Amino acid sequence: MNLPSKIVEEAVEEFASLPSIGKKSALRFVLHLIKQSPQDLEDLSRVILKLKNDLIYCSNCYNISNATVCEICANPKRDHSTICVVEDVRDIMAIENTYQFKGVYHVLGGIISPMDGIGPSDLKIEELVNSVKEKDIKEIIFALSTTMEGDTTNFYLYKRLKEFNLKVTTLSRGVAVGDELSYADELTLGNSIKNRTVFEI
Amino acid sequence: MNLPSKIVEEAVEEFASLPSIGKKSALRFVLHLIKQSPQDLEDLSRVILKLKNDLIYCSNCYNISNATVCEICANPKRDHSTICVVEDVRDIMAIENTYQFKGVYHVLGGIISPMDGIGPSDLKIEELVNSVKEKDIKEIIFALSTTMEGDTTNFYLYKRLKEFNLKVTTLSRGVAVGDELSYADELTLGNSIKNRTVFEI
Repeated sequence: MNLPSKIVEEAVEEFASLPSIGKKSALRFVLHLIKQSPQDLEDLSRVILKLKNDLIYCSNCYNISNATVCEICANPKRDHSTICVVEDVRDIMAIENTYQFKGVYHVLGGIISPMDGIGPSDLKIEELVNSVKEKDIKEIIFALSTTMEGDTTNFYLYKRLKEFNLKVTTLSRGVAVGDELSYADELTLGNSIKNRTVFEI
Repeated sequence: MNLPSKIVEEAVEEFASLPSIGKKSALRFVLHLIKQSPQDLEDLSRVILKLKNDLIYCSNCYNISNATVCEICANPKRDHSTICVVEDVRDIMAIENTYQFKGVYHVLGGIISPMDGIGPSDLKIEELVNSVKEKDIKEIIFALSTTMEGDTTNFYLYKRLKEFNLKVTTLSRGVAVGDELSYADELTLGNSIKNRTVFEI
């Protein structure tokens, strides 16, 4: 691409480093920004610096937070004896959007993936075990991806946690709402038959 | 969406104002940025401020530029008697990428579009007419979108420029390279038959 100026080139480079943004989209962003008011650009710039300076991780569950303890952990109405283990912050948001869970979370920061060189020590697993040791935890819910790596992590966590007197559960697997049975894969369909639930109206 | 922090919310709002970026993509950007080094965030923030402070428009052709006159206008090797009229800066980049044009440009900053409330006075049309008056221009090439608005703008420009002794041309219209004839629309195909060119090897 022939970019009209060094500054545009630099800005395109920066924006192209965002996930799933190529040079063409980055250029569209930059040309859009050029047309905005100086105030708008300052706001964007300031908010990015804020991400760096003001955001911290909750010391309890490793969720993103403004304070040392995040809003969920600080909420006395939540059930602090049930911990839902998730891979990253986005999963907390997804579960919170269902309004079905009233416990607290623990963010692992990834899942065990030897292919990517991520082992148990790269994740917040020790911290989870310590929470279980120190606090009165009744149930741990594994809410990790239903992939090989997720299963491996579930298995590792289970081994680390089985010495404690805990209920360990995992998200149910089955046919998604709106799915046609003929398109469901055998494993999912098999699971959903095995784990069938009582029909309720 | 339940966002974990006010700062994240603010950042998502900002990024969601970029063209064709929704809240989900914006959140992905923000979560990606949070994981970057403080230096990376500072770079991004600095480059955005630079767009505001250091970028100017070429006083001659209204291209984006570092200096009062852009690189293309300042280049003595280019043919300054041929002006290619384009809608916006991106079109200059597209034409420059073809390496087929050695003249200079004039950026209108849009096209006449009564539906969007854009009239001739909102565009750099007077400036184009002044260029033609003051300089020794031999040819004006209309390189606007092949839409109703583009055609309207072409027509308006033609009317404004016909009093001068100028060659006025427009980009050829026809079947694009790689197109199958049976899928080409009648107008395009009709144009490309009417304006057929001598076959050359």
